[in-house]
Amino acid sequence: MDLKTISLSLPHDRGYDIIIGEDALLSLPDFISSNFKDYRLVVITDNTVKRIFYDNLIAVLSTIDNNVLWLSFNAGEASKKISTIETLASQMVEAGLTRQTLVLALGGGVVGDIAGFLSSVYMRSVPFIQIPTTLLAMVDSSVGGKTGVDLPQGKNLIGAFYQPSTVIIDTLFLETLPVDQFQQGLAEAAKYAIGLDASLFDFFIDNVENIKNLEPDILMHLISSCCDNKAKVVSGDEHDRGMRHLLNLGHTVGHGLEASSGYKFGHGDCVSIGMCVAARISVMLNMISEKEEANCNDLLKRLGLPNSIPKGFSSDNIIKAMKHDKKRLADQHIMVLLNGRGKSCVIKDVDENLIIKAIEALS
Amino acid sequence: MDLKTISLSLPHDRGYDIIIGEDALLSLPDFISSNFKDYRLVVITDNTVKRIFYDNLIAVLSTIDNNVLWLSFNAGEASKKISTIETLASQMVEAGLTRQTLVLALGGGVVGDIAGFLSSVYMRSVPFIQIPTTLLAMVDSSVGGKTGVDLPQGKNLIGAFYQPSTVIIDTLFLETLPVDQFQQGLAEAAKYAIGLDASLFDFFIDNVENIKNLEPDILMHLISSCCDNKAKVVSGDEHDRGMRHLLNLGHTVGHGLEASSGYKFGHGDCVSIGMCVAARISVMLNMISEKEEANCNDLLKRLGLPNSIPKGFSSDNIIKAMKHDKKRLADQHIMVLLNGRGKSCVIKDVDENLIIKAIEALS
Repeated sequence: MDLKTISLSLPHDRGYDIIIGEDALLSLPDFISSNFKDYRLVVITDNTVKRIFYDNLIAVLSTIDNNVLWLSFNAGEASKKISTIETLASQMVEAGLTRQTLVLALGGGVVGDIAGFLSSVYMRSVPFIQIPTTLLAMVDSSVGGKTGVDLPQGKNLIGAFYQPSTVIIDTLFLETLPVDQFQQGLAEAAKYAIGLDASLFDFFIDNVENIKNLEPDILMHLISSCCDNKAKVVSGDEHDRGMRHLLNLGHTVGHGLEASSGYKFGHGDCVSIGMCVAARISVMLNMISEKEEANCNDLLKRLGLPNSIPKGFSSDNIIKAMKHDKKRLADQHIMVLLNGRGKSCVIKDVDENLIIKAIEALS
Repeated sequence: MDLKTISLSLPHDRGYDIIIGEDALLSLPDFISSNFKDYRLVVITDNTVKRIFYDNLIAVLSTIDNNVLWLSFNAGEASKKISTIETLASQMVEAGLTRQTLVLALGGGVVGDIAGFLSSVYMRSVPFIQIPTTLLAMVDSSVGGKTGVDLPQGKNLIGAFYQPSTVIIDTLFLETLPVDQFQQGLAEAAKYAIGLDASLFDFFIDNVENIKNLEPDILMHLISSCCDNKAKVVSGDEHDRGMRHLLNLGHTVGHGLEASSGYKFGHGDCVSIGMCVAARISVMLNMISEKEEANCNDLLKRLGLPNSIPKGFSSDNIIKAMKHDKKRLADQHIMVLLNGRGKSCVIKDVDENLIIKAIEALS
């Protein structure tokens, strides 16, 4: 099957390609030979991903380099901290890596965030390539250059906008992905359909079973549509000052729910519920019809994602956690709401009572 | 006395002004009101600088903001580490600072490096202003956007190219600067004269005493000439891939000497000696005359800077430390050498025996 290429354009010649398809990984050696000849290679990954894909990547790279450095850390959000960056950078220095180094970020969202940020600060920046291994990273976090680590006070508070040189999305990686993680990624994919892309919405409706069965051409279309949407948004607003906010559909209430669960709920589940709350508020404000809301809820449900607030979570707790968001610019609720099928907009100063009502309606 | 403005131009609208003169600090409130209305202000500085200039800056800012946050750390290179960045960022989060924050970097080179890097990574970047208080920071480190911290393995191994929104150089700060620190800064200033600017060389020769007496118009001309030279180089090579290497005149051997002294020798002293070694090698390669070498040595001597390798340092030790430089791209000695009065060039693969001979000639 042929590969698909999406181009993300950015000012100042910083645009790059996203290569998608079965065995896309096989295109890696040529890309490196053409663009980073004589660079040392370092793979940054987590222990779980390394165990699964080490042999695979080593074999692919063997045609160009038999001396690849592998550095890994414990899988999970807890590794997303500054000390991990310091440890990895020290290991790279000890291994003699100079500015002429290419970083390969192999893994899910956490790996991409850590490896991307590390690349942006190591000797004041070295290039890197995103090689996402989870659906969530493929459709969302590997594209767009948001990198960073957490502080004890909150998530992603230290970081950089730093774009990869390319993103290589090999859909075969999904064959070993646990079903639950695949489903978490589907929530982010559905976000593009519900908020940005009516034709992707139709495609989803027609192909729920094919998606769950990992049918190659269906996955390729799904992922490339998501990347295409993301690439357009990022091209228009790289530094998250305007339209990029649209990518936060479901994330305002979603983050509040995630935080008040102590990060025990899956990110995708929380985003799914957050989108249902956003749809409810959109109906209350006469921005979409009840029929359109039902269509959204129905799609999420068919994908196996939750539609309602889990037991034990009050609107009080969720709103409190939302207010605690360290990056909130002002003392008001800014939300992405729906104004049509596959259409959304940013609404500033959403009435808190409306949010409470919507949460209670879904409890 | 009027202020002088040097414009540093950069692609993609990222250029900025360097404002120089007595009481330049008084221009700060207007600049902030015009460009960063409704931003929260945080001053990042060290304990020593805070003790000296706190009242001064508070008074200047009082017309626009009575709620400035001050964060400081212990003065000295030992603070230039990742944990300082983490501590400062956490304090900023605790104080409720969002992306709408302006950082004021008040201090010498270490403060500028730390505050600039912190600004580049806090919530994926907030703007900052350089307010250098030492001569070295005024003529060199505050301009050009090199920011960063050290690792146990070496200096400046973690960092970012991140440009300030403006640089405000108030020459009155120099009145309280210890003489020794002033002299260290003179070495970097002389670097521009010797390597890049023959007319600045003439100016130096004519004004050694006036400089030492801190005569205001003389200081203004000296500092603005240095900034003008640096701005031109940085405009042409922001990311240090070509002509910016010229700013390393005296730094290859200088860093080797500095490292092998365990960082006990002043940076300026080491750069001065490094320039003398570079001049010697340039004579050996018939790139300049002995007369031109003598002129360089004479200028440095008249400025009170050393011309010879201190006792107890062998060429072996210095060369070994040079080879240990973690950012060296290849296994060869790349040096900036002189090819005329106020003229220099980068020479790759300088014969190690030549360096040894030059060091021994100056021992």
